[in-house]
Amino acid sequence: MRRLFSLALATLTMLTIPLQTFGDEGMYLFNDLPLEQLETRYDFSPTDNWADNLRLASVRFNSGGSGSFISSDGLVLTNHHVASDTLHKLSTPEKNLIDEGYLAKTPEQELKAPDLELNQLVSIEDVTDKVTAAVDENASIEEATKQRRAVMAKLEKESLDKTGFRSDVITLFGGATYHLYRYKKYTDVRLVWAPETKAAFFGGDADNFEYPRYCLDATIMRVYEDGKPAKLEHFLKWDSAGVAEGDLVFVSGNPGRTQRIFTVDALKYLRDSRLPYVLDYLRRKEIMLQQFGLEGTEETRRARDELFGVQNSRKAYTGMLAGLQDPATIAAKQERETALRSAIASDPSLSDAEQAFVEISEVQGEKKKMLGETVSLRSRLFDLALTLVLRAAEDEKPNEERLREFTEAGRESLVQDLLSEAPIYSDLERVKLADELARLLEIRGAEDALVQEVLDGKGPRERAAELVSGTQLQEISVRKTLLEGDQETVANSDDAMIKLARMMEDEYRRIRSINEQLDERERQAYSEIQSAISKVQGNSGYPDATFTLRLAFGAVKGYQEDGKSIAPTTNFQGAFEHEQSHAGQKDFDLPESWQEAKDKLNLDAQLNFVCTADIIGGNSGSPVVNRKGELVGLIFDGNIQSLTSDYLYTDQQARAVSVAGPGILEALRSIYGAESLADSIGR
Amino acid sequence: MRRLFSLALATLTMLTIPLQTFGDEGMYLFNDLPLEQLETRYDFSPTDNWADNLRLASVRFNSGGSGSFISSDGLVLTNHHVASDTLHKLSTPEKNLIDEGYLAKTPEQELKAPDLELNQLVSIEDVTDKVTAAVDENASIEEATKQRRAVMAKLEKESLDKTGFRSDVITLFGGATYHLYRYKKYTDVRLVWAPETKAAFFGGDADNFEYPRYCLDATIMRVYEDGKPAKLEHFLKWDSAGVAEGDLVFVSGNPGRTQRIFTVDALKYLRDSRLPYVLDYLRRKEIMLQQFGLEGTEETRRARDELFGVQNSRKAYTGMLAGLQDPATIAAKQERETALRSAIASDPSLSDAEQAFVEISEVQGEKKKMLGETVSLRSRLFDLALTLVLRAAEDEKPNEERLREFTEAGRESLVQDLLSEAPIYSDLERVKLADELARLLEIRGAEDALVQEVLDGKGPRERAAELVSGTQLQEISVRKTLLEGDQETVANSDDAMIKLARMMEDEYRRIRSINEQLDERERQAYSEIQSAISKVQGNSGYPDATFTLRLAFGAVKGYQEDGKSIAPTTNFQGAFEHEQSHAGQKDFDLPESWQEAKDKLNLDAQLNFVCTADIIGGNSGSPVVNRKGELVGLIFDGNIQSLTSDYLYTDQQARAVSVAGPGILEALRSIYGAESLADSIGR
Repeated sequence: MRRLFSLALATLTMLTIPLQTFGDEGMYLFNDLPLEQLETRYDFSPTDNWADNLRLASVRFNSGGSGSFISSDGLVLTNHHVASDTLHKLSTPEKNLIDEGYLAKTPEQELKAPDLELNQLVSIEDVTDKVTAAVDENASIEEATKQRRAVMAKLEKESLDKTGFRSDVITLFGGATYHLYRYKKYTDVRLVWAPETKAAFFGGDADNFEYPRYCLDATIMRVYEDGKPAKLEHFLKWDSAGVAEGDLVFVSGNPGRTQRIFTVDALKYLRDSRLPYVLDYLRRKEIMLQQFGLEGTEETRRARDELFGVQNSRKAYTGMLAGLQDPATIAAKQERETALRSAIASDPSLSDAEQAFVEISEVQGEKKKMLGETVSLRSRLFDLALTLVLRAAEDEKPNEERLREFTEAGRESLVQDLLSEAPIYSDLERVKLADELARLLEIRGAEDALVQEVLDGKGPRERAAELVSGTQLQEISVRKTLLEGDQETVANSDDAMIKLARMMEDEYRRIRSINEQLDERERQAYSEIQSAISKVQGNSGYPDATFTLRLAFGAVKGYQEDGKSIAPTTNFQGAFEHEQSHAGQKDFDLPESWQEAKDKLNLDAQLNFVCTADIIGGNSGSPVVNRKGELVGLIFDGNIQSLTSDYLYTDQQARAVSVAGPGILEALRSIYGAESLADSIGR
Repeated sequence: MRRLFSLALATLTMLTIPLQTFGDEGMYLFNDLPLEQLETRYDFSPTDNWADNLRLASVRFNSGGSGSFISSDGLVLTNHHVASDTLHKLSTPEKNLIDEGYLAKTPEQELKAPDLELNQLVSIEDVTDKVTAAVDENASIEEATKQRRAVMAKLEKESLDKTGFRSDVITLFGGATYHLYRYKKYTDVRLVWAPETKAAFFGGDADNFEYPRYCLDATIMRVYEDGKPAKLEHFLKWDSAGVAEGDLVFVSGNPGRTQRIFTVDALKYLRDSRLPYVLDYLRRKEIMLQQFGLEGTEETRRARDELFGVQNSRKAYTGMLAGLQDPATIAAKQERETALRSAIASDPSLSDAEQAFVEISEVQGEKKKMLGETVSLRSRLFDLALTLVLRAAEDEKPNEERLREFTEAGRESLVQDLLSEAPIYSDLERVKLADELARLLEIRGAEDALVQEVLDGKGPRERAAELVSGTQLQEISVRKTLLEGDQETVANSDDAMIKLARMMEDEYRRIRSINEQLDERERQAYSEIQSAISKVQGNSGYPDATFTLRLAFGAVKGYQEDGKSIAPTTNFQGAFEHEQSHAGQKDFDLPESWQEAKDKLNLDAQLNFVCTADIIGGNSGSPVVNRKGELVGLIFDGNIQSLTSDYLYTDQQARAVSVAGPGILEALRSIYGAESLADSIGR
């Protein structure tokens, strides 16, 4: 599943530079659409209305995915696996929404998500000149980092004050371009319908990233304003015919991160250091969460959503690494780079770009040294504590000098997260914290002064138990007091977790500052390379992904695998056959509701399909539309061959995988008894 | 389960030195039994007959466990999880012995294990003087390593030629003592009875290393000689009453490796480097095998035995590491060491021992550098290829100069392994080899010359597929030709895997030689420390474990945990209650056979019990006997508190866990319809 791999990629920098595109390659900005390519390749010219409606009907989920408005009365469509964070938070030992699914039969039964925020992109403003002017060309890296942060905070604050919209300055093309994105926020989001995991994730981890597929990976929510279903001007009408081989389709969503511009040295750093490191970490978490789940059915439930996320990332990164370990990949990248560098070398005005390659290579060496340099103890309670501690200190500073997440423009989102009513499970927190403490000890060594202070003479398990029982951060009221208090309030707290976070604060800031300066050095270097590329090859159209709204396009298209033709579409009939041919295997049993409905179900209805559009993690839940702008499906996965698309797009076998719109309607009507919900879709 | 952790501990050296014992601590040599302790603590004096019969009724499984003779007509009792290697090799897609269990109703139905070897210890001879005399005191480390290896090979060969018994020189007390062990070998071993995994491993990974337990972790085999059931003079009679709190019991088995003598610096190396490294490796293998199993039920079956082993090791090492990460553990060890070193410092004649602590500390630094320096690509096909390549070269040398496993004394065992009829699954081999190749690339880097030669311009997956399809080592006849040919035969082979092994040979030998010299330096240093200990504290009786026969003793005894009293014994009633209280959880359903037999079963019959005897991995399957030398049970596990016993024995909560003899008899009679088998036991 194409969930944003936020866990591990968070510290990869957002580097965003275009290259010459290939085939249907590209994740285009909505203010710079690939008109020429669409005209040439598909004889299609989108109108302004077409593009505006698609943009305004698209939403971003802050939990790490995409979605779309699908009715005038606030309905939102996304993936089950994007919604699962919310389903998990709404579940209890008695009512397991992830297992059982959900259908609100009346508006009163629609369940409010505890901390979901949806963003609708209402405008884009180019602020490159303002940002560039604010950063002194001769400043040290440290100064430049500060100046850039300051001007971005200032622009965001001004925009927020003026418009009331969430305002984010986005760094594009490696710092060559800065855009100010304004979003309408929806924070009252309610669950309307979700299928059972057996339907949404049919085939489980085994089928994840495979094709053909038969997953109903869809969930419907509704946005509310002032306590009532939001009235929406822009939403997607639905196509009812289903797609056919060769159809031109578009994907409008928020791809998370790509590394298409990475130099060969940067890719080698990924291959030799970063990805093996991240995979070790993910496998460790996977085993830990599995072990916790073995303790009982309730423990399984508590750990499951996180376990799914970790497994998904592990499988995706394994594929990414395998791609990089194939010498052909690096050879292809090397060939392009050699050509570019020779063009650069022959133009004396581009000597800065030549130097930039050296700089990037040096930064990779620095990054390798910083791998594992972390004091973050990944667990909800520690994250809360650290955020509260940092918040108190940051609020003493002027807005422009604060760490990015503590500026005034982002305050509402920060508060929503800190005061979320989502349950926190002490048993799971204890196990996670014990593992993180053990890992800290392993990385820094038992003789390290900070480790000794943190462990306080105890083993990791004992200390974790003490910390979790010594904190009251599970209580929203306690968090609220600390959030609203000043630095002294936090300093005087005798909450065990707050005290731990205060112990960590200096070291956390030190490490973060080093990483941010490395990012700045890379940004400056890639910006030079980007200028050189524009001069040498011309601008070919799209920046690397930044978890902001993009348009991709492609054709519905099957492919060849191991000498077999894989058809582009699947249907319900195929799902039942797939179940039968995997009898006895874990996660290959369709839910009871499907068995019962089988007779009245239209087994020919389209369920999943593939296309060549250029997507990546974060695109999950993105609407897929046809030439008329009608929804034909929603992205939920890429096949295994697409896992290298972080750094290399191909259309040979790599495909984006979607749930088909007609399949969703058929399931709502014939399986889930949701006729009236189905009737309201697209209207 | 207490299976020998052979996978990962293979490269830990066999360091074997006594310390002052505590409580029921100790794994004693059969030629140096703890007579004084038994007399003092338990008022018990074993007769020579008692000890001889117990020793001769005990067997070692070359697959990594222990067992005992339990009838005059060749029956052998061990754990299901020790036998599982054989059960796995005897299984087919159609007949899954691990899932379904097995009962031979007639002698003809007894299934011959493809490559099992059982060893019965028939005599022990002290050869310390001969070994010591052959090693020049002033030799370099390299020379000393060779001289020691040579004299051991010579002694073993002489003994084999003279007696016909398998003859192994064992390094004890860190090289202060050498014993020649002579074993009668049984290589025709057949499966008689095994329960279902649901009974043997009831509670699965969740309950592994936990207590109370309810596992029928037992399997019965039979040794044959000349095609007929072996007639045995020495076997164990069975107690039928069951054990009671306070009973003195003995464990006769083959503990694998302990590190009781380790210096604090050596323990810190384990804590900070070795164990985290091994755990990363194990988690990687665990995920890989799980993923392979997800592909289908047959894939699950193929990977399962290895997956069980990896999970078991991972859980055991996690507990070991947690123990070392508790500052109290190192503090306790440090206290003892400080006392010892201060005694040593005050005696000028012990200056070599003072220096030995420094030497060991330095060796840990060298070992850290060698971590990950490996070219072994763990998979059956590569192991076979490398062994065949090494064998051809080693056979050109005089017996005394060969690598340990290629000397003439061990030839029969080597041949049995190389020509085993156990199935080799190409799909699993491919996946394992691809992962090992990827890991080699990650460790040595893509620019490494050997890596480039090995990968031959391909990615790990592609190359692994090519290697597996390009080898014929699955065929026994092909292996036989290579085994019986000379170096030229092997050099001329165009088998892809043989060619790969030849590529690796030099680097393999280089790394192995460095590690062996580090071992020699440690051996010499620990030998000095051992002499000092003997002088300062007196000999307290037992060397660290070496996977050779030892006697441990202790009392049947419950313990306190989280304020609760844990009773020492469980019964069948408890098993059914345990099932009910874990309804819906994976691996907590008892097999059909138990459900059907419930009414006629004696629910009060003892099923499992705990005692304070000092055991470790390798002791699995060890008979537990009472004062009369009658079998009362067999070891199958230690509880979670015992996982630190590699380096520290305690009897506070740590316990050895056994299957009770009466439970086995009751199950055979009332569940498995094996009345006549049950009748023949103990006779």
